[in-house]
Amino acid sequence: MKTFIIGHKSPDTDSIMSALVMANLEKNFGSTNEVIPCRLGNLNKETEYILEHFNVEAPMLIDSVSGADEVILVDHNSFLESAPDIANAKISKVVDHHRIANFETTEPLFYMAQPVGCTCTILYELYRMNSVDITPTYAGLMLSAIISDSLLFKSPTCTQKDINVAEALAKIANVDINSYGLDMLKAGTDLSSFSASELINIDSKEFNANGAKFQVSQVNTVDIDSVLNNKSEIEMVMNDLISEKGLDLFMFVITDILTCNSKAIVLGNKASVVENVYNTTIDDNVAFLPGVVSRKKQIVPQITENI
Amino acid sequence: MKTFIIGHKSPDTDSIMSALVMANLEKNFGSTNEVIPCRLGNLNKETEYILEHFNVEAPMLIDSVSGADEVILVDHNSFLESAPDIANAKISKVVDHHRIANFETTEPLFYMAQPVGCTCTILYELYRMNSVDITPTYAGLMLSAIISDSLLFKSPTCTQKDINVAEALAKIANVDINSYGLDMLKAGTDLSSFSASELINIDSKEFNANGAKFQVSQVNTVDIDSVLNNKSEIEMVMNDLISEKGLDLFMFVITDILTCNSKAIVLGNKASVVENVYNTTIDDNVAFLPGVVSRKKQIVPQITENI
Repeated sequence: MKTFIIGHKSPDTDSIMSALVMANLEKNFGSTNEVIPCRLGNLNKETEYILEHFNVEAPMLIDSVSGADEVILVDHNSFLESAPDIANAKISKVVDHHRIANFETTEPLFYMAQPVGCTCTILYELYRMNSVDITPTYAGLMLSAIISDSLLFKSPTCTQKDINVAEALAKIANVDINSYGLDMLKAGTDLSSFSASELINIDSKEFNANGAKFQVSQVNTVDIDSVLNNKSEIEMVMNDLISEKGLDLFMFVITDILTCNSKAIVLGNKASVVENVYNTTIDDNVAFLPGVVSRKKQIVPQITENI
Repeated sequence: MKTFIIGHKSPDTDSIMSALVMANLEKNFGSTNEVIPCRLGNLNKETEYILEHFNVEAPMLIDSVSGADEVILVDHNSFLESAPDIANAKISKVVDHHRIANFETTEPLFYMAQPVGCTCTILYELYRMNSVDITPTYAGLMLSAIISDSLLFKSPTCTQKDINVAEALAKIANVDINSYGLDMLKAGTDLSSFSASELINIDSKEFNANGAKFQVSQVNTVDIDSVLNNKSEIEMVMNDLISEKGLDLFMFVITDILTCNSKAIVLGNKASVVENVYNTTIDDNVAFLPGVVSRKKQIVPQITENI
């Protein structure tokens, strides 16, 4: 009998760590099944850094749960975020911190959800509830997931419980939260291998408003200036796209996830809109946008209204 | 701010006790909301007996959750089993032991489910997890729910955890499980106020098979003979229905939920089918059916095949 433990598609650090941490808990529960932590996609750079740091093997890459007798879901419940054949599987447990939707079972199951910032915060409680020891390595994995999901406690989704659990885990793992957390987040935002064109396409969206066209690309970093080292090449690519698509405005937003500030390279005949909206000046094509981190909430509506 | 705590429609003992027990837990959590245990229907006789025994007031009767700022569901999750306007409510917590289906939320929530026999078994763990003391009265309510859902540990849905928790609760409540449990179940199966016609209609279904028509009514009791005291009146009603509907067979099954045996009053021109199926004899219209408790699994398929 095999139990697969999986996080969501396009796995982030919490999905990977939760699969590993839950698998260890199941083994300690005395599960008689073969318990296999799995993943539905490639590791990101942050996750790679963490696994290397703690010398832990990645979960098994799968694209189907047909080989499992039962499945445990972590860090998600929606079938839309899960394995393509999840609806046919026997789901025995779920540990998650998201809303419940697009989920159902034919049998009663174990389901533990809490409205906290990270699945590993809940897993910590499950270890405690069941008096299962947390080794320094597993504490490190759980702590890493909390740092990742909470952006070192700066995300609005972070709760006091996440902070308390992270502090307890840091002691067990013997890790300095701030210095390790910064290194880890920095590894995840390592953009050094990306070309200017790739940088612009990591996360880019086009919009139309008031007869004008604008595009906003965004990257996350912990070192805005190192991204700006590439500024002239990025500008060339942006100008090519402006000509090609007839854009009136192109913003390439570089967000520092630690300070929660952004700088944007701003090009196009409507560039002055950015100066008006954010009450700032564009200096050598670069605008400083203090406190701006969300394209969805802090950029698109404001530009749409004023362009 | 008001929090309503509700069990399922047509509430059984677990739904009523879980609402009361969860409300007490929320108050001990230090909820700043006004926490109101509620119910979506009338109390059954077993539940009435328990509340009287422990001198506890029934939850508030409601038919809508429109008066609540948030809602906690216990002993169910399906919107089909819940308040008619539940889809518009903010569901903040769920504690349940059923499969998950016809349920969704727009926000993350607290959700605790386990595949055990009774919601109160899970609530016991939540008290323990949160170091909230269980008073003798609340222990009595929780114990009653476990006895009810598990038919004094005889139901196939009962787990070892339910038994362990019930034993711990009996100590706190200072209750003898067997004698109290018998009294409680007996109160719930008190059929003395029902007329013969009402008895037959408590739970009755008609079936067609091989060109024949048959009907099977069932009542639960802890004293088959006291139901049979009414035998001649019951037979009159059954014979009237046989003529009226053209039934070939009518079984009135009286199930002893403690011994897990049944006796059936069997009438109609195909009565001998019952003798063949169960390898028994019908004596003065009554057949003894040892080990038969489930109409769905132990009566309908067998009669369907042999009538």
